Amino acid sequence: MNILITGFEPYGGEDYNPSGEIAEKMNGEILNGHKILGVKLPVSFKRVGEILESNISDSNPSVILNLGLAPRTAHIRVERVAINIMDGGPDNDGYRAIDEPIVPNGPAAYFSTLPIRRIVEALRNTGIPSAISNSAGTFLCNYVMYRTLHFIHINGWNVKAGFIHLPYTSRQVAGKTVRFPPPSLPFTMLVEAVKIIVKTSLENL
Amino acid sequence: MNILITGFEPYGGEDYNPSGEIAEKMNGEILNGHKILGVKLPVSFKRVGEILESNISDSNPSVILNLGLAPRTAHIRVERVAINIMDGGPDNDGYRAIDEPIVPNGPAAYFSTLPIRRIVEALRNTGIPSAISNSAGTFLCNYVMYRTLHFIHINGWNVKAGFIHLPYTSRQVAGKTVRFPPPSLPFTMLVEAVKIIVKTSLENL
Amino acid sequence: MNILITGFEPYGGEDYNPSGEIAEKMNGEILNGHKILGVKLPVSFKRVGEILESNISDSNPSVILNLGLAPRTAHIRVERVAINIMDGGPDNDGYRAIDEPIVPNGPAAYFSTLPIRRIVEALRNTGIPSAISNSAGTFLCNYVMYRTLHFIHINGWNVKAGFIHLPYTSRQVAGKTVRFPPPSLPFTMLVEAVKIIVKTSLENL
Amino acid sequence: MNILITGFEPYGGEDYNPSGEIAEKMNGEILNGHKILGVKLPVSFKRVGEILESNISDSNPSVILNLGLAPRTAHIRVERVAINIMDGGPDNDGYRAIDEPIVPNGPAAYFSTLPIRRIVEALRNTGIPSAISNSAGTFLCNYVMYRTLHFIHINGWNVKAGFIHLPYTSRQVAGKTVRFPPPSLPFTMLVEAVKIIVKTSLENL
Repeated sequence: MNILITGFEPYGGEDYNPSGEIAEKMNGEILNGHKILGVKLPVSFKRVGEILESNISDSNPSVILNLGLAPRTAHIRVERVAINIMDGGPDNDGYRAIDEPIVPNGPAAYFSTLPIRRIVEALRNTGIPSAISNSAGTFLCNYVMYRTLHFIHINGWNVKAGFIHLPYTSRQVAGKTVRFPPPSLPFTMLVEAVKIIVKTSLENL
Repeated sequence: MNILITGFEPYGGEDYNPSGEIAEKMNGEILNGHKILGVKLPVSFKRVGEILESNISDSNPSVILNLGLAPRTAHIRVERVAINIMDGGPDNDGYRAIDEPIVPNGPAAYFSTLPIRRIVEALRNTGIPSAISNSAGTFLCNYVMYRTLHFIHINGWNVKAGFIHLPYTSRQVAGKTVRFPPPSLPFTMLVEAVKIIVKTSLENL
Repeated sequence: MNILITGFEPYGGEDYNPSGEIAEKMNGEILNGHKILGVKLPVSFKRVGEILESNISDSNPSVILNLGLAPRTAHIRVERVAINIMDGGPDNDGYRAIDEPIVPNGPAAYFSTLPIRRIVEALRNTGIPSAISNSAGTFLCNYVMYRTLHFIHINGWNVKAGFIHLPYTSRQVAGKTVRFPPPSLPFTMLVEAVKIIVKTSLENL
Repeated sequence: MNILITGFEPYGGEDYNPSGEIAEKMNGEILNGHKILGVKLPVSFKRVGEILESNISDSNPSVILNLGLAPRTAHIRVERVAINIMDGGPDNDGYRAIDEPIVPNGPAAYFSTLPIRRIVEALRNTGIPSAISNSAGTFLCNYVMYRTLHFIHINGWNVKAGFIHLPYTSRQVAGKTVRFPPPSLPFTMLVEAVKIIVKTSLENL
C-alpha cells in the first residue's frame, strides 16, 4: 500500500509553508512498511487539480493526507468536510474566485473518509493539541480536499482521504516582527503529528 | 553569583502550572557557572510576599526571573512593567482583591530591570516566538513582579529582575476537551526559553 | 406571500437569546406587504424538527430566515452551507450528539438558497458589519438550517431559505461581569439587519 | 467648570478615527451646565504634547477625557494607568519610537484620576459594554494620557483626568472588505458613552 501526502508552496506574502516542507521531507520515507509519496502543490486554482489527480492515479494510495497552513490556528485541525465552492484569492497565479463551484453540478460537500475522531484522540494522547474542524475555508485547502474526495468518489475507490490544517511553525513565527505573535507549534511536532495521523488511518482501513 | 527563578503553583481550576514546574525542575542546576535557586510560590496575595522576600534575601541573587502562566498567550511574553494594584481573584486562599494598592504610597509602577528587548531578540533568534508585553495584569503575576522590584529598589540592590509570562504547554492543552484549543508551546521549549533569558540577563549585568 | 422567521430560546447557561426575541417581536408584522410568522424554537435536537416543519407547512412561506446566536461573533454572519452532522451539546434536553447524521443517507450538505452575497452587501451599505460564513457549526443552528433546506428540497418548493448568526446584544454583554467583554451590536441594529435581509431576499425571489 | 475632551485624527492607514470625530462634534456643547472644549489632536509624538498642554492651560478644565481608537476592542475600555514609555510607530510624521521615556526621569507611571470603576458601572448599567483596561499601549494614546496626568501633577491641579479607548464604529467596520470583521459599536452609542463618562466624573469631583 502507498501513502500520498500533499502540502502547499508558500502563498499570501509568506516565504515558507510548513505543509509543503513536510510533504517534501517525508517523500520516499517508509512508514509501517508503506511507502510515502510526498508532493508540494502549487497554490493555483487552475493548475492544482490536474497535478493532484495524476499523483493520485500514479501512486494508487490507500491513504491520502492533504496538508495546508491555517495561519490563526493553535493546533492540528482535522477537517471534517469540503464544500463545492471556490471563494478567495488572489492565488499564486493572481486569480480571485467569487462563489464559483469547484465541480459544476457536483455534490454540495464531501465528508473526510479519514477516521477523524480517532485521529484527534491519538494526537491528544501523544500530547499534541488537536480538534475536529468544520470548515476548511473556501480557498485552495478546501479545493484540494474537495477535488481529492470527488476523484476517489467518482472512481469508486476505497481510500482514506482528508485534509489536515497545520499551524505556523514556531521558528516561522519567531521570524515575524509583530506585537502579538500568532500561535505556533514546532516543526518537529508537526512532523510527528503527520506520522500519527498516517498510522491511525492505516489502523482503520 | 546566584540566580533566583520563581514560578507558581496551579490556580483557577487548572491542575498544572508550567511556571512552577520549571522553577522546581531547574532548582539546583548550574547555568554558566551560576547556581539556580528554583522556588514554587503560592497563588496567594497574603502569603506570597514574605516567601518571595525571604528567598531573595537568602539567595542574594544577581538575576531574578519570576515566571507565570498566561492562558491565552501564544509566545514568551517579556513583561515591561509592574503596577501598584491588586485587582482580581479569587486566589488560592479565596481572596478577591478590588483596586487595592500592593504597597500603599508606593510608586505607581516599576519597570523591569532585565534587558527585555535583548531577551526578545535572543529568543526569536533561537526560533522561539517572543514579544515585549506592556501589562502583567493585576493578579498574582503583577503582584510578584511589583513586590520583587520594590524590594530590590528599597534595598538599593543592583539586580536584574523581571517577569516572564509563559503560554500553556502543548501537553497541557492536549489534555483539554475543547473545540478551540488555546495556544501552547512544548514544555522543552519553555525550559530552553528560560535558560536563554537567564544567559542574556547574565551577559547584560 | 408569507415570511417565516425562526429564532431560539436561551441555552448554554445564558438567560437571553436575541434570535428568539427578534422572532417573537416580529411575529405578525407586515414587511413590504408580506406577513411575518415569527417562532421561537426549542434548543432540542429531538423536538425542534417537527415544530420547524409544521411551521413551514402551515405558513407556506416564500422566505425562511432561521436566526441563531453566535457568541464570539462581531457581525451579522450570513451562513453559506449546512452540513449533515450533529455534534455538540448538551442541548436543553441534556442530549449530547457525537458525529451523528441529521438525515441518515441525506446529502452531505445544502447551500443556502438566500442571495447571501447581496445580503452582505445590503447590510454593509446600511452601515451594519456583515460577512459570509462558511460554517454554521454542528449544533442546533446547523441542524435547523439543514432540516429546513432538506424539507424544502424533498418537497420541491422554491423557497429562499437560510441561516443568519447574530452576535450578542450590547445590553446582554453589558450585563456580564468579565474582563474582556465579547463583541456585540445593539438589539435595534439586529432587528434592522433582519428586516434588510428579508427585503433583499424578497427582491431576489 | 470646563470639560476638555480630546480625540485623534486618523492614523495607520485608516481614513476615519471616531475619537477625533466625537471630540469635534462635542466641541461647544453644554453638559450638566459645563462647557465642553473638544479638540482633535495630531498622531505625532513630537507635536501633540505642546498642543495638549496649551489646551489644558487655556480651558482650565475640571474634567479631562482623552479619547482614542483601539482597533481590536469590543467595548469601552477605561484605562487605569499610563506608563513612561514611547514604543511604536510610525506616527503620522513617520517617527518610530523604541523604548524611549516620555519624560526623562519622570515617574514610571501615573494612575488615572477618573473614577474608573464607577464609570464602568455607569456604562454597563446603561447597556453599554465596558471594562477597566490595564494597558493603554505604548503609542500615542498612552503618550497623551501620561503627558496629561504629568502636566496636572506637576502643576498640582486637582483634575479628573484619564483615557478612554473606543472600538471602531459599526459603520467604519461595515466599510471594510474583510472575512472576519473586527468588533464595533455604533457611533451614537460611543457618543452616549462619552457623555455618561463626563457626567460620572462630574459627580465624583
